[in-house]
Amino acid sequence: MVTNHQVLFNKVQPTGLPKPGETTTRGSTELDLDSVALDGGVLLRNIAVSLDPTMRNRMKGNNGYFSPPYVVGKPVTAIGIGEVVRSEVDGFAPGDIVYAWSTGIEEYTLHPAAAAATFRKLDAAQLANGLSITTYLGAAGMAGMTAYMSLKEIIGDLKPGNKMFVSGAAGAVGQLVVQLCHQAGVKVIASAGSDDKCAFVRELGADETINYKTQDVRAKLKAFAGETGIHYYYDNVGGDQLEAYIDNAARYGIIVACGYISGYNADKPEDIVYPKNLFNVVTKELKYQGFLVSSYLPKWLGQFMREVPQMLADGKIKNREDVTFGVYGAEDAFLRLFTGENTGKVAVLIDTERADKWNLKKQMDGAKVWK
Amino acid sequence: MVTNHQVLFNKVQPTGLPKPGETTTRGSTELDLDSVALDGGVLLRNIAVSLDPTMRNRMKGNNGYFSPPYVVGKPVTAIGIGEVVRSEVDGFAPGDIVYAWSTGIEEYTLHPAAAAATFRKLDAAQLANGLSITTYLGAAGMAGMTAYMSLKEIIGDLKPGNKMFVSGAAGAVGQLVVQLCHQAGVKVIASAGSDDKCAFVRELGADETINYKTQDVRAKLKAFAGETGIHYYYDNVGGDQLEAYIDNAARYGIIVACGYISGYNADKPEDIVYPKNLFNVVTKELKYQGFLVSSYLPKWLGQFMREVPQMLADGKIKNREDVTFGVYGAEDAFLRLFTGENTGKVAVLIDTERADKWNLKKQMDGAKVWK
Repeated sequence: MVTNHQVLFNKVQPTGLPKPGETTTRGSTELDLDSVALDGGVLLRNIAVSLDPTMRNRMKGNNGYFSPPYVVGKPVTAIGIGEVVRSEVDGFAPGDIVYAWSTGIEEYTLHPAAAAATFRKLDAAQLANGLSITTYLGAAGMAGMTAYMSLKEIIGDLKPGNKMFVSGAAGAVGQLVVQLCHQAGVKVIASAGSDDKCAFVRELGADETINYKTQDVRAKLKAFAGETGIHYYYDNVGGDQLEAYIDNAARYGIIVACGYISGYNADKPEDIVYPKNLFNVVTKELKYQGFLVSSYLPKWLGQFMREVPQMLADGKIKNREDVTFGVYGAEDAFLRLFTGENTGKVAVLIDTERADKWNLKKQMDGAKVWK
Repeated sequence: MVTNHQVLFNKVQPTGLPKPGETTTRGSTELDLDSVALDGGVLLRNIAVSLDPTMRNRMKGNNGYFSPPYVVGKPVTAIGIGEVVRSEVDGFAPGDIVYAWSTGIEEYTLHPAAAAATFRKLDAAQLANGLSITTYLGAAGMAGMTAYMSLKEIIGDLKPGNKMFVSGAAGAVGQLVVQLCHQAGVKVIASAGSDDKCAFVRELGADETINYKTQDVRAKLKAFAGETGIHYYYDNVGGDQLEAYIDNAARYGIIVACGYISGYNADKPEDIVYPKNLFNVVTKELKYQGFLVSSYLPKWLGQFMREVPQMLADGKIKNREDVTFGVYGAEDAFLRLFTGENTGKVAVLIDTERADKWNLKKQMDGAKVWK
């Protein structure tokens, strides 16, 4: 028998920051890895999970968001990578490393056959390139896919010399967008919530940055827009920055609507800011298009996997991670998505015992290790 | 010498309905058609002009809209059709009938060479098909082009069985959208501001209608959406109906943003309604795209002119016009765009002396004829 440590969803919380110990709690169950009934499914030993802002919406109860709400008393789920312990599904064998769209924030998860059918195997050759396993949850995973595929799908060819505004630029998706645009010859202005994050984003290639907490977003965008206006906006936050972009958009400006973080934690729905200038969507002929990466995997995944992990391994794209060690650290790490303390991809290494194998030993040395 | 009767822009009016006699006034000048200096341009005898809601924005002074504001003391300008009286521009000769993106609401307009360069000649053969000249300002003109080209450009192939919501459906653009969608096998729900307009729109092929002044837009859309949601929204009005659509949109829903009439006459900017659910643009992966027909003429004009006038002449597409007779009637007719008294394309026949030639004699009989 092993003890399976878990982070459980404990209470629906419509507004505000999630509260560790209240919105979520720690728990554990006992599990016999050898004899637990699989019922046709797959038993996964979770290696690492990704923490994403959209998870916040699933803590609000059943209020019409696209992803289903979390279930009180059950483990919080997240995108993750795990190792197959036992399998009753054809094509998956013990030792396989798989990417799961939804696994528990816990050490072991029993996946029914239907869930296992959506697993994607990670190529052992790719894992040997020295990248941390959590890279495959970030720059080489969902965040990277989101940045890469949304630019390809909604903008198409980035035109050198055009101007791009990226909000949430120090976040998991934003930092990739900044680099992909910079490499394509696009001039980038990027916003983030601290001077440190702004400095990081400039290192990645942003021509200008805006600390949106201390600087005037409108004035900075206006100066950057100059005579041409700003051609593209990669929108992770919505709200006031979206409105400011619309005011400074070039004709035919394109808005990639990737997130609305400014609204996720509003205390009251009426506190969420919505732009009061949509009129200009007509007069400037803007395109404002939402994007969920899951819709475009069949089209772009092959090209992404051929290009992006190698660019990361070669250092052509930089990647900053915020890795927490140990399953119980997830509650704390999740908060950092919203308090602005994170820079880059927030992930949790659950399988701390094999940190070396997952190329995270160096990062774990000296860091706090939770259960 | 002839007297050139004119409708002049008289006073910037930021909000509310335009006021005949105050926002605009009547005036006249004397003109010697034979000797007035052309300075390299073209003297046009205006036949008819189109009145469009977007003209309202040009009465608000210089406040950042795409089209330049009207100049106090000068004639109000509009899209029109005229006959060349004299020309110093190659390619235009007396008697040519031309389509002008901007001509004065007056009997004669002297166009500089740069403006004349954007004239487009109307084919005499097409004018012989019995359609009223004002049809070329409506269903076979800008309004028709707007409906036709925006559907082609932003939606592409309309999928039979999909659902479409059209607001402002009895208006010049809306009535074409309803018919084009109905002919493509799309199920249409259409909103308009009176029961008469709704009845008209049902005649055109709408499956369901909403009198937005007396019926619950949200409830009607929800019932129409059913399990599938509504796939397309042709948005002429913005505001509350836009928000109601977003709530009932199918995943990957497409919004053709053609106008924001609900905002044009707001007394105060803060009275303009903007949707408070843009969040769903992300979660439902909606595309919300603005459109000005001028951007797409090079791509679609040939195909439009080959298809649509003939469909009108054959009665395959119905067209309802609201034609006013005489240049001074323009003030009154313009108001009707906003009070909701019009059904269909609002236009003014300026050249009432030749109503027969322009296939409008029957309509003029019994109607009020202004100077």
